[in-house]
Amino acid sequence: MSIRVTVWNEGVHETTEPEIAAIYPDGIHGAIAEGLGEMLGEDATIRTATLADPEHGLTDEVLADTDVLTWWGHIAHDQVSDEVVARVRRHVLSGMGLLVLHSGHFSKIFIELMGTTCSLAWRNDAERELVWTVKPGHPIAQGVDQPIVIAQQEMYGEHFDIPDPDETVFISNFEGGEVFRSGVTFTRGRGRIFYFSPGDQEYPVYFHPQIRRVLANATRWAAPVVERSLPDVTNPDARTWTA
Amino acid sequence: MSIRVTVWNEGVHETTEPEIAAIYPDGIHGAIAEGLGEMLGEDATIRTATLADPEHGLTDEVLADTDVLTWWGHIAHDQVSDEVVARVRRHVLSGMGLLVLHSGHFSKIFIELMGTTCSLAWRNDAERELVWTVKPGHPIAQGVDQPIVIAQQEMYGEHFDIPDPDETVFISNFEGGEVFRSGVTFTRGRGRIFYFSPGDQEYPVYFHPQIRRVLANATRWAAPVVERSLPDVTNPDARTWTA
Amino acid sequence: MSIRVTVWNEGVHETTEPEIAAIYPDGIHGAIAEGLGEMLGEDATIRTATLADPEHGLTDEVLADTDVLTWWGHIAHDQVSDEVVARVRRHVLSGMGLLVLHSGHFSKIFIELMGTTCSLAWRNDAERELVWTVKPGHPIAQGVDQPIVIAQQEMYGEHFDIPDPDETVFISNFEGGEVFRSGVTFTRGRGRIFYFSPGDQEYPVYFHPQIRRVLANATRWAAPVVERSLPDVTNPDARTWTA
Amino acid sequence: MSIRVTVWNEGVHETTEPEIAAIYPDGIHGAIAEGLGEMLGEDATIRTATLADPEHGLTDEVLADTDVLTWWGHIAHDQVSDEVVARVRRHVLSGMGLLVLHSGHFSKIFIELMGTTCSLAWRNDAERELVWTVKPGHPIAQGVDQPIVIAQQEMYGEHFDIPDPDETVFISNFEGGEVFRSGVTFTRGRGRIFYFSPGDQEYPVYFHPQIRRVLANATRWAAPVVERSLPDVTNPDARTWTA
Repeated sequence: MSIRVTVWNEGVHETTEPEIAAIYPDGIHGAIAEGLGEMLGEDATIRTATLADPEHGLTDEVLADTDVLTWWGHIAHDQVSDEVVARVRRHVLSGMGLLVLHSGHFSKIFIELMGTTCSLAWRNDAERELVWTVKPGHPIAQGVDQPIVIAQQEMYGEHFDIPDPDETVFISNFEGGEVFRSGVTFTRGRGRIFYFSPGDQEYPVYFHPQIRRVLANATRWAAPVVERSLPDVTNPDARTWTA
Repeated sequence: MSIRVTVWNEGVHETTEPEIAAIYPDGIHGAIAEGLGEMLGEDATIRTATLADPEHGLTDEVLADTDVLTWWGHIAHDQVSDEVVARVRRHVLSGMGLLVLHSGHFSKIFIELMGTTCSLAWRNDAERELVWTVKPGHPIAQGVDQPIVIAQQEMYGEHFDIPDPDETVFISNFEGGEVFRSGVTFTRGRGRIFYFSPGDQEYPVYFHPQIRRVLANATRWAAPVVERSLPDVTNPDARTWTA
Repeated sequence: MSIRVTVWNEGVHETTEPEIAAIYPDGIHGAIAEGLGEMLGEDATIRTATLADPEHGLTDEVLADTDVLTWWGHIAHDQVSDEVVARVRRHVLSGMGLLVLHSGHFSKIFIELMGTTCSLAWRNDAERELVWTVKPGHPIAQGVDQPIVIAQQEMYGEHFDIPDPDETVFISNFEGGEVFRSGVTFTRGRGRIFYFSPGDQEYPVYFHPQIRRVLANATRWAAPVVERSLPDVTNPDARTWTA
Repeated sequence: MSIRVTVWNEGVHETTEPEIAAIYPDGIHGAIAEGLGEMLGEDATIRTATLADPEHGLTDEVLADTDVLTWWGHIAHDQVSDEVVARVRRHVLSGMGLLVLHSGHFSKIFIELMGTTCSLAWRNDAERELVWTVKPGHPIAQGVDQPIVIAQQEMYGEHFDIPDPDETVFISNFEGGEVFRSGVTFTRGRGRIFYFSPGDQEYPVYFHPQIRRVLANATRWAAPVVERSLPDVTNPDARTWTA
């Protein structure tokens, strides 16, 4: 059974800045979708959606038809409608998987699901990032180099203000001296969430074969395994549990 | 150094329902404050605040002067102003401790800090609740009976839709057959949060010496140990880390 | 690709006590193997092994050919050879999955992997056990009743002296008033471990369709997803990480 | 009430290698004890013990009189008697705090309490280590620089084969490109354990004021808050829980 993936991207940098468009000619969503298609083949059915689409391309129908949603945003977080954010949250808590990427740490949906500020340290200086696996038996680390070497990246550093993750899968080292919990998992409601920091509009990170592998692994991992349903209050009759 | 505690209560049941006022003549906040005073003595300075107070008694000045805030609410969650909720959240993330009690699981502040629905199963049938310690070395379990016996309580049962807690300290057994993770800790930002379910307006649970002990232990545990400051973005100069 | 399962059982009760043999005519291992076969079909290849077999049936060859090992023991823990325990531990840390069942909490292998006493409270009084799911999105909870009702069981209660689990999937309620973290996961090295308490030689628990479902789900979950290899010390050359 | 600390050190490098003795003239234990005394003052009563002492200085009487034990070992792990290790383990599970330092990751006591290989990557090349706080509200991070800068250190890198920690407080960056979970907490039985990696016989790390602060904070954090008692099996009478 094919995993239904929706790759979401705000898509602003690529349409307004020629130097970013040169790096991501099909948009960041195009590069991510291409990578997932390459890695997952017939195991996934992939569509894309962007901020400019009606309802940002994330209607209730689309979300109900999505097993895993990936989210990239940066300069337009505040243009995402609160209604769409509430809808995405409801689907995640019901069981839809969510991959939050890079600057998506400051998206409304991530902050609402985490409850914290999600702030961090950053520096854009084309530094080398080494992504180390710290949980080698984890499905998301399957077939991943130790370490993944990214020649140039924006630095994201600690303190990263998130709740303690369920699992820390990757930790990054930056040339300038910082560290970052770059691959972390959370469960919220019935949904699985993976935050993965490598990936910036100014560097071709989403074409890196190892980054593509991580995103493909994470897509498989985040796909729901139980029936989707929003957790809700119940008021059971007393003492009805019988064999 | 005395722990500065603010005991918050919506205070609606006690002022509108005589049978509840009979159980909690000084309000639920009065019973909680009395218990903390009895257990903590000079180690704590305790004030109370309720929904009816201007700004619900939770101005920025009060919160800045509060080490640990306790929160009880039930039928008036939606009357708590969003501005006050945002303010409390900011103080928690900066390091103020928060104790969320019983039906406070559905308060705006708890849902915002958790990110989930915080829904659960319930039944009001005066059942016996046994509160079992599952982490006996934890400071909140210090001097607590194994189990705490509460003769009559509202049942709260699983599934309780919260993020995986940092620590599960107590799990309850209900006569009717349910279980509930009744004492759980979370860290959000620099703040420590303890959710504790025993305590309902229809039962005199907050007069129970063992429940008072747990709340006193939790108050000590949640008091901040590092300087309060809201996590924020930083943009450090490159390569400045020198010995 | 078929999951290779080895169902291990000390097999002493069934061969020395007629009343136990009447409950489990093919041994506890026989009942477990039958249940896994029924649930997993061609997705699993199942063999059994017992204490009485040469090297307890757990040679290096068998373990290397095993994706998931299930372990049931009770009165003969001390008859399991230390060499076999060391061997099993090495395979678990290398990535082999391990399901520890019921009284296996006191097996040498579980204690060695946990580091704690693994002690608990118990009472054999044919009480009703209700097994509640507290992490409904987890693969091991897939298709499982809320709650599972076991008409008669030995009681296992808190405090259960284990390290904080990675995940708590199930918590049980016992008629007599206790609770127990009855389904918990751990990662050790590259291996996934699931402890599941329902199942006693005096009650036909391993014929219960819901218990069989949990064991089948856990088998799928514990099967290794990355190449097996024992974590070891490395001494990398300095600064060799290049793109 | 004063915290009773026993600083344990194998004490072999300092007595056999003049260049190490020059760095640590009073032994590594001497430097650690001095630092704790400086930071904790009258809040702690500190003694030291070494491998060469009868029973390694760790009799039952000494351990019963110890709130927190710190452990440094490297080349003589296998000379520590199994009986002493079993004794220390029993005291930790009963509630004694344990600080395992640097190469102590390969001590018998740490491996027994963790259950894993505790292996890691290493390189001795006098690299700069930056120790980043990732849980700033934690008591062990109180008053600690962000980051701690250690001019020269042995590199310890991932993958560090330990169970998922209860809390990750510090993560280190090494000049050569590695990262390491350098400050992590565990609970085992009633005991609190803190592993802290900075500190090597070839570098004067235990004289670093910030490292001393961490060790002092960790000592306060690890001191038991509940009565010491080894978790044990109980067999309670049925249905005896009454109010």
